[in-house]
Amino acid sequence: MTRIDDLPVRDELRGKSPYGAPQLDVPVRLNTNENPYPLPEPLVERIAERVREAARDLNRYPDRDAVELRTRLAEYLTRTGGHRVGLENVWAANGSNEVIQQLLQTFGGPGRTAIGFEPSYSMHALIARGTGTGWIPGPRNEDFTIDLAAARRAIAEHRPDVVFVTTPNNPTGNAVPPETVLALYEAAQAAKPSMVIVDEAYVEFSHGDSLLPLIEGRPHLVVSRTMSKAFGAAGLRLGYLAAHPAVVDAVQLVRLPYHLSAVTQATALAALEHTDTLLKYVEQLKSERDRLVAELRATGYEVIESDANFVQFGRFADAHEAWRKILDRGVLVRDNGVPGWLRVSTGTPQENDAFLDAVRELECFVGDIPTPPKEQSA
Amino acid sequence: MTRIDDLPVRDELRGKSPYGAPQLDVPVRLNTNENPYPLPEPLVERIAERVREAARDLNRYPDRDAVELRTRLAEYLTRTGGHRVGLENVWAANGSNEVIQQLLQTFGGPGRTAIGFEPSYSMHALIARGTGTGWIPGPRNEDFTIDLAAARRAIAEHRPDVVFVTTPNNPTGNAVPPETVLALYEAAQAAKPSMVIVDEAYVEFSHGDSLLPLIEGRPHLVVSRTMSKAFGAAGLRLGYLAAHPAVVDAVQLVRLPYHLSAVTQATALAALEHTDTLLKYVEQLKSERDRLVAELRATGYEVIESDANFVQFGRFADAHEAWRKILDRGVLVRDNGVPGWLRVSTGTPQENDAFLDAVRELECFVGDIPTPPKEQSA
Repeated sequence: MTRIDDLPVRDELRGKSPYGAPQLDVPVRLNTNENPYPLPEPLVERIAERVREAARDLNRYPDRDAVELRTRLAEYLTRTGGHRVGLENVWAANGSNEVIQQLLQTFGGPGRTAIGFEPSYSMHALIARGTGTGWIPGPRNEDFTIDLAAARRAIAEHRPDVVFVTTPNNPTGNAVPPETVLALYEAAQAAKPSMVIVDEAYVEFSHGDSLLPLIEGRPHLVVSRTMSKAFGAAGLRLGYLAAHPAVVDAVQLVRLPYHLSAVTQATALAALEHTDTLLKYVEQLKSERDRLVAELRATGYEVIESDANFVQFGRFADAHEAWRKILDRGVLVRDNGVPGWLRVSTGTPQENDAFLDAVRELECFVGDIPTPPKEQSA
Repeated sequence: MTRIDDLPVRDELRGKSPYGAPQLDVPVRLNTNENPYPLPEPLVERIAERVREAARDLNRYPDRDAVELRTRLAEYLTRTGGHRVGLENVWAANGSNEVIQQLLQTFGGPGRTAIGFEPSYSMHALIARGTGTGWIPGPRNEDFTIDLAAARRAIAEHRPDVVFVTTPNNPTGNAVPPETVLALYEAAQAAKPSMVIVDEAYVEFSHGDSLLPLIEGRPHLVVSRTMSKAFGAAGLRLGYLAAHPAVVDAVQLVRLPYHLSAVTQATALAALEHTDTLLKYVEQLKSERDRLVAELRATGYEVIESDANFVQFGRFADAHEAWRKILDRGVLVRDNGVPGWLRVSTGTPQENDAFLDAVRELECFVGDIPTPPKEQSA
């Protein structure tokens, strides 16, 4: 029987497994930071209507430049991001993963490197591998904030071509202060100059503001966003970026032509018509997220301050064992491999209650939590 | 003003332009090999219905493995391809371009090379560039058939990691005989071994059969397909491949997780329910394609035998000038940069009549066609 390793695959892929959280059939799924609220029925109808219209022209290639969609995304960013952007500042792709892949194909790739401060969104490193970009794991403080002095040293030493800053950070939940991002940008420019990608997938859930205004006068700074979380549309796969128009021109040198289907464009446009309703769900989720933080702390857990729609909590002597015990109680959370910690997505009030019940029981039944703080090897 | 070349883009992207045919607003568009027939209204309604259903779950990530869709694609291939394949043999992505990108990320990439026999589908070379794969332009005969002896020599000399065989070939239209594909496969195995990608985007329009049965016992052979042409769904962006299950496992090491949106999966599933109707359009297009070949020849043009939904015709002293003159008559055809030749997609009977009228006038008004055969530098 021929297996993967019998094929002439690239050496760095040998022995690897595909990325992805376990897709388990469990009553309460709080493991992939999905928005727990289904789209409202009027929006579902509007999607059906716009897709029906698009389907009548489906024998034709889609608008390659997605002009209407990028215009509407620019309007959304202008309204909510504190900075005026236009069509020429915005690019869209199949999920922010594809946005990042296109950026690394343009500014990273063979013979080049990218740095990220770990633990962070693990797809950054995986997409680096997939695009032949060397990956440099950068440092963090024990409390998961960015150690600016150490980060600057790493940038000066390695002179990476791309610097990732995830804010709010995934899986830890904490936002990066704007002054830290600016300092990293300056360090990156002094070292190379390199592109700085600010991954704001969860920014709508933040207590603070988007860093979108920072793109002004900084052509090497890119803000990456998604409709998966705040717009409740993980199934849609619509990511986008905002940056200097030259960046938007540059990624078009590597994007696959017609990469964004007519049905994707139609569905995203329908969702953008319902922005106000969807942002109300975000407000509900923010207050539920704050409740999770408060109740976990009241139960005795250590919790990282969260600006996202998820919460990192601990500490556990054996996080994977704790993950399994929570799963035994019908609740699926995420073990991101950060020693001592687990991540829970904010669900509906009922789902969050089920989760809180499960971890309260855990405190009674499992002797290994909460343990006193110990050295982290994150 | 910052421009692309002021950014730290990869050297090989400097001075390049994005790929893509001109999107001009012209009465008769026969330039991108689209299917001229809109989807039938019952299918449009079925798409709206399935997408409505998918939209109710759009806050959740899509099925990462697209199991239902791959199962239906396998059934379609089994029914029409002369070989029984299952879910485990099939993989799908956003257009065959993404299928090919994933294959090159897996089997090509930095330090590796791919060969294609030119002129052929120019995206193969562009996706090679985008994935850091070295590109080797392979030879063809003057009549655009593959020069097997020369091709074997090129494979033995360059020992490429990936060999592309496009059949029917784009833009020339001719199919590659199965024995030639088998000989190339053997040469590729003797040289390396390398993966052979048989790009069958247009195979439903062929006089002959799919090469799908060749995957049996050949784990290094991949057949790539698309729903853009025969299924009349260029706007959907749904490409797929059939191969040994180990190949399907291997591309999952590089695919972006959840790369295929829930709306794309739902729309493709609806289209597959209407396969029989859509294949009737294919039969109409095949007979119109044959009419185009016959009438172009009757007018005095040289035409390459076509197994696709398009026809390459010539010869012109200046193909681009002829392209422009046909455009002046309201008909957009494709100048693929093959000296002396243009490509026209098969349209509706009315569109084809408009095209034939335009090129008949061209014969009267332009002295440069038809010219006697001359040396080709294709």
